[in-house]
Amino acid sequence: MVQYTLTYFDVRALGEPIRLLFKYAGVEFKDVRIKHIDWPNIKPTTPTGKLPYLEIDDKVLPETSAILRYLARQFNLIGANEFEAAFADSTLDTYRDFMAAIRPHYVVVAGFAEGNADQLFKDVYIPNRDTAFKRLGDLLSKSKSGFVVDSGVTYVDFFIADHITTLLNLDPSFEKTFPEIVAYQKKVYALPQLKDYITTRNFSKF
Amino acid sequence: MVQYTLTYFDVRALGEPIRLLFKYAGVEFKDVRIKHIDWPNIKPTTPTGKLPYLEIDDKVLPETSAILRYLARQFNLIGANEFEAAFADSTLDTYRDFMAAIRPHYVVVAGFAEGNADQLFKDVYIPNRDTAFKRLGDLLSKSKSGFVVDSGVTYVDFFIADHITTLLNLDPSFEKTFPEIVAYQKKVYALPQLKDYITTRNFSKF
Repeated sequence: MVQYTLTYFDVRALGEPIRLLFKYAGVEFKDVRIKHIDWPNIKPTTPTGKLPYLEIDDKVLPETSAILRYLARQFNLIGANEFEAAFADSTLDTYRDFMAAIRPHYVVVAGFAEGNADQLFKDVYIPNRDTAFKRLGDLLSKSKSGFVVDSGVTYVDFFIADHITTLLNLDPSFEKTFPEIVAYQKKVYALPQLKDYITTRNFSKF
Repeated sequence: MVQYTLTYFDVRALGEPIRLLFKYAGVEFKDVRIKHIDWPNIKPTTPTGKLPYLEIDDKVLPETSAILRYLARQFNLIGANEFEAAFADSTLDTYRDFMAAIRPHYVVVAGFAEGNADQLFKDVYIPNRDTAFKRLGDLLSKSKSGFVVDSGVTYVDFFIADHITTLLNLDPSFEKTFPEIVAYQKKVYALPQLKDYITTRNFSKF
C-alpha cells in the first residue's frame, strides 16, 4: 500500500482540496500540519521552499495543482476521457488566474501585507469576482452533470468549492450575487463521501 | 485527422512552447497570430478573455499549461510513467511561480507598466532568478537524461528552454552566472526535430 504524507499549514487554502480528494477516495494519508511559527525553520528543508508538498512513499511532489492531478489520476477523478481531463486542468488554471488577480486584496485581509482593504475589495476583488463567476456559472449551466465536466465530479470541483467557502467568509455579498454558484458549492460539499468530514472539520477562515 | 488551431499573439512568450511541441511531434497545426492592435476586438470572442487557446476540431481549450499537458499526452511527451508526468507538471508550475514572482520587473521592461526597471531588476528579478536556477540546476544535475525527467525530453523542457531565451535577451549576466542552464537550453534547442525551426523562426524578444 502506498504511504501518502501531505505537508501543509493548519488552514484550508491550498491544502484542503488535496485533503478532500483523499477523503472522497477513502484513501488514508498522513495529514502533517505545520505551525506558521515553525515555518522559517522548516522552509529550507522543503523541496521548493513552499507548501504543500506530497510524499508518495519515498518520492516528493510539490505544487497543489500537480498533486491534485496526480492523485486524481490514481483515484479516477479526472473525468471520463483525456479531453475532460484537459478541460478540468484548464478550468483549474483559469480559476487560479482569478485567485492571482484578487491576491492584492487577499494579502491585505489575511494580514500578509498592509493596504486599504475596502478600496482593494471594490477595485480589485469585485470586478474580478464578477467576471470569474459569470464565466463559471455559464460553464456549469451547460454541463450535463452540474459539475465542471459532463461526466461528473472531478478534483477541480473540490478546489473551487472549497475556495468559495473562503469567499463566503470574506464577501458578505457573494451568496446574494451568485446563488447558483453557492448551490454548486453545496452540491460538492453534500457528496456522501465528503459530508461528514465537511461538517466535523475545524473552522479555518482561509 | 485532428485539426489543431492555436491562437496567440505574434510573440514567443506563452505560445511558443506549444508551437515547439507541435514542431517536435511533427504534427501540423494552424498557427493563428493576433496583432496586439486587434486584441481589444478579439478578446470578448475568446473563451476566457485570454490567449493562447487551442481548438481541437470543434473543442476549445484555454490555458498554456493545460494545452501543453493535453498535447504532450497525445504526442507521448509526458515522461515514462505517471510519476514522471506529475514531476514534469510540478516542475512547470514551480517554474511559472518563478515567472509570476519576476512579473513586476517583466511588465516594466516589456512596456506594460511604468516603473524603475533597474531597481526591479536588482530587487525582484535577481534574487528570484538565483533561487530558481540554483534549484533547476540541482534538479538537472541529478537527472539521468539531463532533461527535467529521467527518461528524456518532455513538454516542460520546451517551456523552460524557450523562456531562458527571454531571460538571455533581458539579462546580460545570465549566461555567465548559469552556464550549465544555458547548456541545457542549447541541448533542447539542438534536438533534431526542433533545430531547423529554431534557427529560421522570426526574432521575438519575449
